Amino acid sequence: LPRALWGRPARLFVLLFVVADLLGALVLLLPAAHAEGHDLTVVEALFTATSALAVCGLAVIGLGTELSVFGELVVAGLVQVGGIGIMTLASVLGVVVIHRFGLRMQLTLQAETRSLSVGDVSGIVGRVVRTSLLCEAVLAAVIVPRMWLAHDMTLLEALYSGTFHSIMAFNNAGLSIYDDSLTRFSGDPLILLPIAAATIVGGLGFPVLLELRRHLRSPRRWTLHTKLTVTTTALLFGAGMVLVPLMEWSNPATLGGLSPGARLVNGIFHGIMPRSGGFNTVDVGAMEDSTLLVTIMLMFVGNGSGSTAGGIKVATLAVLFLVVWAEIRGHPHVHVFGRRLPPSVIREALSLTFLSMTVVVASTVALLVATRYQLEVVLFEVVSASGVVGLSTGITGDLPEPAQLLLVVLMLAGRIGPITFASALALREHTRRYDLAESRPIIG
Amino acid sequence: LPRALWGRPARLFVLLFVVADLLGALVLLLPAAHAEGHDLTVVEALFTATSALAVCGLAVIGLGTELSVFGELVVAGLVQVGGIGIMTLASVLGVVVIHRFGLRMQLTLQAETRSLSVGDVSGIVGRVVRTSLLCEAVLAAVIVPRMWLAHDMTLLEALYSGTFHSIMAFNNAGLSIYDDSLTRFSGDPLILLPIAAATIVGGLGFPVLLELRRHLRSPRRWTLHTKLTVTTTALLFGAGMVLVPLMEWSNPATLGGLSPGARLVNGIFHGIMPRSGGFNTVDVGAMEDSTLLVTIMLMFVGNGSGSTAGGIKVATLAVLFLVVWAEIRGHPHVHVFGRRLPPSVIREALSLTFLSMTVVVASTVALLVATRYQLEVVLFEVVSASGVVGLSTGITGDLPEPAQLLLVVLMLAGRIGPITFASALALREHTRRYDLAESRPIIG
Ligand SMILES: [K+]
Ligand SMILES: [K+]
Repeated sequence: LPRALWGRPARLFVLLFVVADLLGALVLLLPAAHAEGHDLTVVEALFTATSALAVCGLAVIGLGTELSVFGELVVAGLVQVGGIGIMTLASVLGVVVIHRFGLRMQLTLQAETRSLSVGDVSGIVGRVVRTSLLCEAVLAAVIVPRMWLAHDMTLLEALYSGTFHSIMAFNNAGLSIYDDSLTRFSGDPLILLPIAAATIVGGLGFPVLLELRRHLRSPRRWTLHTKLTVTTTALLFGAGMVLVPLMEWSNPATLGGLSPGARLVNGIFHGIMPRSGGFNTVDVGAMEDSTLLVTIMLMFVGNGSGSTAGGIKVATLAVLFLVVWAEIRGHPHVHVFGRRLPPSVIREALSLTFLSMTVVVASTVALLVATRYQLEVVLFEVVSASGVVGLSTGITGDLPEPAQLLLVVLMLAGRIGPITFASALALREHTRRYDLAESRPIIG
Repeated sequence: LPRALWGRPARLFVLLFVVADLLGALVLLLPAAHAEGHDLTVVEALFTATSALAVCGLAVIGLGTELSVFGELVVAGLVQVGGIGIMTLASVLGVVVIHRFGLRMQLTLQAETRSLSVGDVSGIVGRVVRTSLLCEAVLAAVIVPRMWLAHDMTLLEALYSGTFHSIMAFNNAGLSIYDDSLTRFSGDPLILLPIAAATIVGGLGFPVLLELRRHLRSPRRWTLHTKLTVTTTALLFGAGMVLVPLMEWSNPATLGGLSPGARLVNGIFHGIMPRSGGFNTVDVGAMEDSTLLVTIMLMFVGNGSGSTAGGIKVATLAVLFLVVWAEIRGHPHVHVFGRRLPPSVIREALSLTFLSMTVVVASTVALLVATRYQLEVVLFEVVSASGVVGLSTGITGDLPEPAQLLLVVLMLAGRIGPITFASALALREHTRRYDLAESRPIIG
């Protein structure tokens, strides 16, 4: 590969991503990809390809009704390629970034040297592919027999549905061959909980997964990144799994109609899914506004860096929180787990969060002006797209085409943006030589 | 005054503020404060006193219908005391904080020395009082004759209404003796525009006002704080004055029913008021969701430090933006107007913003759970209270008492919080002696 491109891996990734997206859309426009008597518009094909490649999960068509089996396989392929691509890029950049700052990370054996060869990269790709396929196979091995034996499917149907949803789950893609997502399994915790577990594992991020595999039982040896990610993600899953069931418990349009046990399982499921899983088993549009707001906040944060989840990532949230905590305690430095956070990482976390919020607010205002929907559903849709989560209150398919194209841009930006933005920040050359006198405005 | 208290001016201020609040509520509970045939509950009195003292403007009662003239004068007095107290405290802290960091600020003549005597403080109080009364008198001199001559009022009525609203306007208090706020003046730009101008002047903040008075025509001599505040506040007012008229132009329930000229004037008025003015001339509750969202963002930011406006303050927003801009350009330091921002100010801006957002989101979730209102109105009300703005979609009076008490807490926290939080940050002792090795998580 040309050196110039490897010098800018993020730029190469953006190029490859957009090309793959357009190719995917073209293939989905082929008649062979459509179900009998159905046809896709250009925007529908582009939206579907982007949602799959960005492992988002929003849909303007019903995959099961409007696509052929070939079309569905194309979608699954795009999800698999998108997921592996994102995890690989994030891991490569992770190694480069960590190197750049002269720090140690036990990600790969090659991390001791300062250069990254083509061999190193293909080594990382290999690990990512093996990890992905292994996790997907384990999930399929659990849910395929269950679908076959307990859900009135033939073995072939169960194999197909189980494998498809396993790929979606580990990659946090949230797309389903069923038009009502996983609603038909709302009574079966033996399907829902393994799927939820797979989205959690996939959402931790490849760097963390590798480290957990190596040092699962000795948390002391974990890097700061893994410690922060595991702690924060556990707290956020905990919050979602408590708040969502509590707030929806008596809502007759969602959990209220189910048995207590099913309320608990489906409530917990919907407390997990905003972290990028994107499946639903009840009508999200019928949820209370309080639940929608909590879901929006969880979607905005997302999950682990270098994962198939979106959002600003849990490590970023952790840095913000640690800064506030240090300020409140009056510490001039930000300390955590026996380490000090460099000022650069604080500025990066602040920048990524502030930019993401600006994008969300501006897009929400634009969509509100362009449509007649209310704030809560539009904000929900925008955060779901830019956080590549895939949950929807149900308006996606009814939006005018320009609004759908805005969501396409948000999905692309939400997928590519944080990785390339953060890596560009971390990889840049510092050219400013001189320096100015300090001065401070009054804050607050 | 005891040295220990002056060592902690913020703590003294909190104490005085809460005592004044409770005293105000007690006075408002007196029968003499009520209009014939009306009575106030404890919560109504506490809410009204807090809204006045915190110069917020939210109301659970109609001042004109439920209070006597004495009651209205108590409200005006609380506003005047609250406004002067806030500007004084912020200015005193400004001097102390700037001293602490060994930087120069042309705020007072005493700023050359490192200590602040009782004489200095009363000097500042004197300046604040003179500036406030002067600005209020100028506004009253403009609107009283206009009310008398063009609005079917007796001279006494015009004097009373004009003076009352002048006090409210300069102090950004947003309370009115009319139950529909300034709606009756929606056809009169000669009332609305002077009032809007007074809220802008009052919202700049006392430190900036003093500097502008001294060096209005030589911006080069302005401190960094004044440069940042003037620039950012102009941009934000510009945004509001363009977006609000545009988005409400054809809304029949707000601007749509007015003549084109009146649409422009009232649209601009409503683009200015979210920055803490808090008056309204059209039904805010009938605005488009897009306008509500823009208004919410403007209310969250507020206006100048050391002013009677609330929010995180424009200087804080400017710091956040400058950090992002420096990150995007790849500069290791944050430079603006030929100065470098110290890392401590970046952490303070981040902390104040993140804490404010956390309070807003948590309070919104709580109110959504406790009431049946939708996200946009609840979020609006929460940001209006915690940003001490005073605009409302109209639900304040209909909220259950616990929800109204939450708003009281938000108004107090929004008024006292940022000042004391920021000054506590800036004034603290750094005690951490040792330091740890740096380590960085992956952002994005
Ligand atoms: K997703
Ligand atoms: K106000």
